[in-house]
Amino acid sequence: MPEFDLPLDRLESYLPDRREPQDWQSFWDITLAETRAHDLAVESRPAAAYLPNVITSDMSFAGFGGHRINAWHIRPRADVQGTVVQFLGYGDGRGTPLDWLGWPAAGFATLVMDTRGQGARARRAGNTGDPAGSNSPYVEGFLTQGILDPHDYFYRRVFADAVRAIEAALTLDGTDPEHLAVAGASQGGAIALAATALAGDLVRASVIGVPFLADVRRAVRVTEERPYFELLAFLGTHRSEAETALRTMDYVDGITLAAHATAPAKFSIALMDTICPPSGGFGVYNHYAGPKQVDVHPYNNHEGGEADDQVAAVEWLQGLWS
Amino acid sequence: MPEFDLPLDRLESYLPDRREPQDWQSFWDITLAETRAHDLAVESRPAAAYLPNVITSDMSFAGFGGHRINAWHIRPRADVQGTVVQFLGYGDGRGTPLDWLGWPAAGFATLVMDTRGQGARARRAGNTGDPAGSNSPYVEGFLTQGILDPHDYFYRRVFADAVRAIEAALTLDGTDPEHLAVAGASQGGAIALAATALAGDLVRASVIGVPFLADVRRAVRVTEERPYFELLAFLGTHRSEAETALRTMDYVDGITLAAHATAPAKFSIALMDTICPPSGGFGVYNHYAGPKQVDVHPYNNHEGGEADDQVAAVEWLQGLWS
Amino acid sequence: MPEFDLPLDRLESYLPDRREPQDWQSFWDITLAETRAHDLAVESRPAAAYLPNVITSDMSFAGFGGHRINAWHIRPRADVQGTVVQFLGYGDGRGTPLDWLGWPAAGFATLVMDTRGQGARARRAGNTGDPAGSNSPYVEGFLTQGILDPHDYFYRRVFADAVRAIEAALTLDGTDPEHLAVAGASQGGAIALAATALAGDLVRASVIGVPFLADVRRAVRVTEERPYFELLAFLGTHRSEAETALRTMDYVDGITLAAHATAPAKFSIALMDTICPPSGGFGVYNHYAGPKQVDVHPYNNHEGGEADDQVAAVEWLQGLWS
Amino acid sequence: MPEFDLPLDRLESYLPDRREPQDWQSFWDITLAETRAHDLAVESRPAAAYLPNVITSDMSFAGFGGHRINAWHIRPRADVQGTVVQFLGYGDGRGTPLDWLGWPAAGFATLVMDTRGQGARARRAGNTGDPAGSNSPYVEGFLTQGILDPHDYFYRRVFADAVRAIEAALTLDGTDPEHLAVAGASQGGAIALAATALAGDLVRASVIGVPFLADVRRAVRVTEERPYFELLAFLGTHRSEAETALRTMDYVDGITLAAHATAPAKFSIALMDTICPPSGGFGVYNHYAGPKQVDVHPYNNHEGGEADDQVAAVEWLQGLWS
Amino acid sequence: MPEFDLPLDRLESYLPDRREPQDWQSFWDITLAETRAHDLAVESRPAAAYLPNVITSDMSFAGFGGHRINAWHIRPRADVQGTVVQFLGYGDGRGTPLDWLGWPAAGFATLVMDTRGQGARARRAGNTGDPAGSNSPYVEGFLTQGILDPHDYFYRRVFADAVRAIEAALTLDGTDPEHLAVAGASQGGAIALAATALAGDLVRASVIGVPFLADVRRAVRVTEERPYFELLAFLGTHRSEAETALRTMDYVDGITLAAHATAPAKFSIALMDTICPPSGGFGVYNHYAGPKQVDVHPYNNHEGGEADDQVAAVEWLQGLWS
Amino acid sequence: MPEFDLPLDRLESYLPDRREPQDWQSFWDITLAETRAHDLAVESRPAAAYLPNVITSDMSFAGFGGHRINAWHIRPRADVQGTVVQFLGYGDGRGTPLDWLGWPAAGFATLVMDTRGQGARARRAGNTGDPAGSNSPYVEGFLTQGILDPHDYFYRRVFADAVRAIEAALTLDGTDPEHLAVAGASQGGAIALAATALAGDLVRASVIGVPFLADVRRAVRVTEERPYFELLAFLGTHRSEAETALRTMDYVDGITLAAHATAPAKFSIALMDTICPPSGGFGVYNHYAGPKQVDVHPYNNHEGGEADDQVAAVEWLQGLWS
Repeated sequence: MPEFDLPLDRLESYLPDRREPQDWQSFWDITLAETRAHDLAVESRPAAAYLPNVITSDMSFAGFGGHRINAWHIRPRADVQGTVVQFLGYGDGRGTPLDWLGWPAAGFATLVMDTRGQGARARRAGNTGDPAGSNSPYVEGFLTQGILDPHDYFYRRVFADAVRAIEAALTLDGTDPEHLAVAGASQGGAIALAATALAGDLVRASVIGVPFLADVRRAVRVTEERPYFELLAFLGTHRSEAETALRTMDYVDGITLAAHATAPAKFSIALMDTICPPSGGFGVYNHYAGPKQVDVHPYNNHEGGEADDQVAAVEWLQGLWS
Repeated sequence: MPEFDLPLDRLESYLPDRREPQDWQSFWDITLAETRAHDLAVESRPAAAYLPNVITSDMSFAGFGGHRINAWHIRPRADVQGTVVQFLGYGDGRGTPLDWLGWPAAGFATLVMDTRGQGARARRAGNTGDPAGSNSPYVEGFLTQGILDPHDYFYRRVFADAVRAIEAALTLDGTDPEHLAVAGASQGGAIALAATALAGDLVRASVIGVPFLADVRRAVRVTEERPYFELLAFLGTHRSEAETALRTMDYVDGITLAAHATAPAKFSIALMDTICPPSGGFGVYNHYAGPKQVDVHPYNNHEGGEADDQVAAVEWLQGLWS
Repeated sequence: MPEFDLPLDRLESYLPDRREPQDWQSFWDITLAETRAHDLAVESRPAAAYLPNVITSDMSFAGFGGHRINAWHIRPRADVQGTVVQFLGYGDGRGTPLDWLGWPAAGFATLVMDTRGQGARARRAGNTGDPAGSNSPYVEGFLTQGILDPHDYFYRRVFADAVRAIEAALTLDGTDPEHLAVAGASQGGAIALAATALAGDLVRASVIGVPFLADVRRAVRVTEERPYFELLAFLGTHRSEAETALRTMDYVDGITLAAHATAPAKFSIALMDTICPPSGGFGVYNHYAGPKQVDVHPYNNHEGGEADDQVAAVEWLQGLWS
Repeated sequence: MPEFDLPLDRLESYLPDRREPQDWQSFWDITLAETRAHDLAVESRPAAAYLPNVITSDMSFAGFGGHRINAWHIRPRADVQGTVVQFLGYGDGRGTPLDWLGWPAAGFATLVMDTRGQGARARRAGNTGDPAGSNSPYVEGFLTQGILDPHDYFYRRVFADAVRAIEAALTLDGTDPEHLAVAGASQGGAIALAATALAGDLVRASVIGVPFLADVRRAVRVTEERPYFELLAFLGTHRSEAETALRTMDYVDGITLAAHATAPAKFSIALMDTICPPSGGFGVYNHYAGPKQVDVHPYNNHEGGEADDQVAAVEWLQGLWS
Repeated sequence: MPEFDLPLDRLESYLPDRREPQDWQSFWDITLAETRAHDLAVESRPAAAYLPNVITSDMSFAGFGGHRINAWHIRPRADVQGTVVQFLGYGDGRGTPLDWLGWPAAGFATLVMDTRGQGARARRAGNTGDPAGSNSPYVEGFLTQGILDPHDYFYRRVFADAVRAIEAALTLDGTDPEHLAVAGASQGGAIALAATALAGDLVRASVIGVPFLADVRRAVRVTEERPYFELLAFLGTHRSEAETALRTMDYVDGITLAAHATAPAKFSIALMDTICPPSGGFGVYNHYAGPKQVDVHPYNNHEGGEADDQVAAVEWLQGLWS
Repeated sequence: MPEFDLPLDRLESYLPDRREPQDWQSFWDITLAETRAHDLAVESRPAAAYLPNVITSDMSFAGFGGHRINAWHIRPRADVQGTVVQFLGYGDGRGTPLDWLGWPAAGFATLVMDTRGQGARARRAGNTGDPAGSNSPYVEGFLTQGILDPHDYFYRRVFADAVRAIEAALTLDGTDPEHLAVAGASQGGAIALAATALAGDLVRASVIGVPFLADVRRAVRVTEERPYFELLAFLGTHRSEAETALRTMDYVDGITLAAHATAPAKFSIALMDTICPPSGGFGVYNHYAGPKQVDVHPYNNHEGGEADDQVAAVEWLQGLWS
């Protein structure tokens, strides 16, 4: 049944209980402080000479633990209207600059951050490893790495990387701090949301598509597709540690992050999304604390609005900053 | 078994028997003459204002039967090094200009031709119908439409459209006839090959990835994945008409088209390709009559070299025309 | 979950909102008038000499657009109790006379109409093409051909063909206008219903099994199996044209056709039918304007009652006309 | 790879080693003698009054062990040209008389034998149980019931039933012993072949489509689809009894039965048949001891020639007996 | 949707209507009386010499119809705390003694009963046939063998075997009648429940995991996975006999057996169990007439609690009998 | 085609080219020296009180990098005939002591080593994390973690852990250095082989079932099932680094390890194994430098000989050491 989640009218008012841990704020404050104790150490060298009509750098910076995180920075030769820090979907890598020409053609610079460890399985290659491992066993994938302790958890590192990516972008030629946005879909949407919530007022606009890591406690009950399947497998194997694992998820769940985010935001949600169920998307949207709007796609699965969403995001940002 | 086709050393010398129909040349001569009897009637209007750093037109021209074929024309604001006419994979549509920014960023103009009838099933929408039907029943899809008569066959119309797309490109601002290339992968590779063979010397370079419609008589015996599945379903249902159907395929099979094509060409072939088996790719490559080179991907299925192929194509064309 | 649709007690009273277009009646009046402007031009020749115990003709007539539509006409050598015009499921062809011996053995003549374009994929071959194409792109299949305009839509042609098939049957030896029925299951059920609604009082009884094209707006939300999948794929790709496409479907939706049909009818519906969900079947049944009865199969998917339904249909018609 | 078995030229001369058990002849002689020790006890009552144009009986007879085996007997009201005893595919049941009208329309009487135990899973219901069980465990299905001892094996009972079906047919009104044929496809083909080999000269013609139980020792190495999967599962579980089980199969393998069959025979074989691989079909065909011919379907899986095969069988029998 | 059945709060109070046949008690009384008319005839011989630290016998006894049923009897060399009669899942066999060392290591003797006919398809081989057949056709598998008559039904024989297994255990060295338990999961859980209900006060404790054959009339409406699929296939083929078949199921349905069982019992149920839906488990649990407790696994499918359940069962029994 | 790899006669003499890196020996010498620089630090506490008939400890030791590796140590209360260090299949965890009672019942002590990072996805839970990460991106899973540098590679750590597990076993009560064996199947077989090759003469016997990591360069060309799929995905994404990745695999490939292993060994290989193809198993077996024997299972996939293999291994070891 393609429309397997709640009906639209119930989704529109769906406000799941947030289980924000008491130490949520201090957990992230400490995480970022520790991360920032490492010098940002931005490095950059020219790349993609075969694309003369844009200016491309292969850059990197020190993320969580001081680990080196790779990224592309691409900007138009013409005037820059703003900068968009772009985050990636689960398993995806930054690929080649050819994949990221939309924002520059529209007048924006973009910084495309590799997700540590990812980018080896599909379409686009990454080239950033994750030197930190997991102190607990994990299901094949990333979602359960370190899940028994929020401090050891994979997305703690990734969200800290994301904040540092924004800070790195601010050091680059052509970045205007008044016009800095984040964007991403699926896992990229989760990271964009986290960056918006955690980077204070550095983020001025946020584009969040079909977000992952949203209302996780419900998600594992309504979908068993990857990547939520990985969490479900962990919970079904480590039965006595299920609540501990879910408690770790509360630290990164979008429904809590949303309540801490205030930049203007544009969401998209697909009603037939079996990877990131729409109740998660609406749970995040309804908790979001800033100005917001949402495009709902009634007949799409996780592909969401695809190019239609991209065009809408470009035009929304152009409108916001014109 | 991922390496299901012939081993590489046999592929490298694989030269399948061409079954070129006696009237092959006159068939295509007449087809193009009939098509050209309709005025080319290029129409164009500015599009994609949200992409200020490229010049985009939503254009159309009269293809086979005088039917209107839609296309994007996108060119850089800087100097143009050449023009690439781009053809699409099976079922794909021209989508939005956001999808076609690689050639312009690399210094080329591009014309992206919709495939008539296609573009409604996946990722990218098309907006070109096919007003001509099929005088014989067909399997769900396009591959068997009109298959009992070469004159009624779907790809007769598409290949004629492709030649007209080149002729339309030549009428546009910024097109240098000395620097006109065609490109495509899968069905797009088949159309690019056909255009190279049928458009005389209008095509100066050809980029052909993992080509479809190649050594068809073998292909249906070694793969049953879509779209070849559609032909297999027809042959298995219309048993007494199987040879008639295969005879129609001989008119569009790449192994014959290749022997009529002489522009410099760059191929790519994947050894684990279950959609367009590598024996088809090598069959075409080995029969190809012009200067040629090939990138072989030993561990890929039909995705072939993806972005690696795109970068290589850009650099090859830049080298060819520098 | 095999019983995925509404529970039986809610189905029994399920009366979905009909969205009958204001010009529904004129749309079909004009369609039939245009079709009838072509001479019916029935042609017939003896066939299947290997079946001496029935009288078989390979016949054809002019359908929509004057296009030639093929059919079998088979009648018993004994007295004829009536004539049944039989329509086919999605993708099916008229096959051979061997497939249609049930009605003749039961004392009825039958005319089996090919569905234009179909009959190349499974079990039974058709031999009728569809010379008319589609002015808009379409998903692989028939369901979305021409869907952006009711006048260009595939089923406009098919439903007109069906009315002409009845008129052709009436010209044949042995047809008694008082004893003319239509029958079909799945797509065949949709066509039989359309013929009952559109052919005025020519149809005297109607056998409608597990009907397709029924309550379409709900169907795409509760099933993603083929053929509804094709519509879902179109809606998910052409997002901004979704309502236009659904509006075209309103012209052929069974819940509207049912309200215009008055001949005695026998339905069958399967509660676990994932191809043509039971809510569609009950939606049509509950709107049906003539005398009616329904066999409900609680444990069947789209195969419905199969031979049990066939026997029941034979006996029902024998009872009605005895 | 759809053409997964040997290429056609090797199939045409493929003559697998027959492993005929020394006591093969006496095994079957004793089996039939024991079966015939029970009175044949044919019972018959009129059936299917809704089919006035044929004469139908619901009949039964005593098969192996004296167990009651059900069948339909259907004959034309016109002259009878001969009688065809029809056997069924794996899991199929005799269904309703509506399913068996081809032979009567073509001028033949037909007796359709239920396969004991089968007819509860798909399309057609049977109504014959198998009162005998299995002295060894078996995989879900029929293929391994009693496989550790030829005397306890399921197909020993079925093949004996088949011989008795022929003997029952000979007692019926309208049966001409000079014109008695057997027919079947898949499991039905295996049973038809067995009946031809085991019933001495009672069988005067044999129609064998895509036969099951053919060159079994190779079949389990080249296909793992059902029903051969069941044997493979047994062999993989009862490792130390594998040879015992395969030895039982030698008693029913078609390559041995074929060498004992001498009636004129018509075969059909499909080159892409993954259920009953073509090497089995050719193994049987090449060993067959009587006059023979074969229709080869190059582009079909296990559906073989379907209606084309049926028409060819009718015409072949009409030619043989005209 | 992994949590496809009722939500937990409704499951906890779910009390499905029991359809206990009027002659349920006499049916089972007569069945057991007939079975006991055969001498129990326990046979035993030493086995598994390679396991010196336990005492193993390959034993057998006369089950239903006097048919020989095989079992392992394994006991520790140290003192025995009690005896557990273990029943197997669908299609499983008793395998080797290596598979059954948990109870002995924990201080219990165990008798592992083969399920007649089963043990040839997966992991563990059985070596007990089922000499009794089925008087009605059946779907591939065991669930529908003899389903049209409770007296002919497969599980009548199996449940009678189970009672005899307990009686056989009581004859063995080291069995203390005060400390006799039954245990099993899935089909094994159904058999354990049946033995508890039917063996009077012989059973002193019962361990029932994710039970099969529970609330069957609902089960076929909420799952179509094997083995319930087999029943669904029967009901969908033999439409007019569906109620007869379901009536036979009422004789073996756990919701009725539970109401006749009084020994202390430990259940486990998995909320995402698509093989044996949790509503069946709770239906049985809520009807169970003895002292009871249940472990609920919220994130597991049919694997349930696996080793966690086994440890819990061991500790529960040790606590009960300490 | 179940027998998809080379035929048995070619397998029996299959001796693939070993690509032993020049620094293979020093690589492993240094790895072990670095590992041994950490104190072994064996810790142990009593566990599984519910199993009074065996002596169980929950133990751990310092593996590669000094990381803590967990294990069970279980020994019979009776005399110990030897000690078997047991390694696990891909993704498996040490689970509970209930799972490991075979060796103790047969008279052996066993040490079951957790595989770092694994044990969260299926059946058995592990509780050992992997604190070391990967400096390069990796496919979801373990096979490609750190694959671009042998020093960073996942199995470097695991193989070093395995050697330390043996050294830890030698410190335990009841371990006789003359009677120490290793055992494992699939990944466990690869680790057992590595331990045999790398631990010098500490290992006195080796049981290797259906080994993984064997003839890897061929394996990715003949199977695409998990886990080899993970490597294939990496090679197909990181095209230009494919040879680097394969070069890393050469350090852990069983065909090289085998040539360095001299303890008596018992292998098992399954001819239909699509997870660990038989050519890999025979490649290892034929290169193995010590006394050896092999059980070949002609009709099994990756399950191999299961309990039959376990019984054979027990009896082989009992024979070797009696």
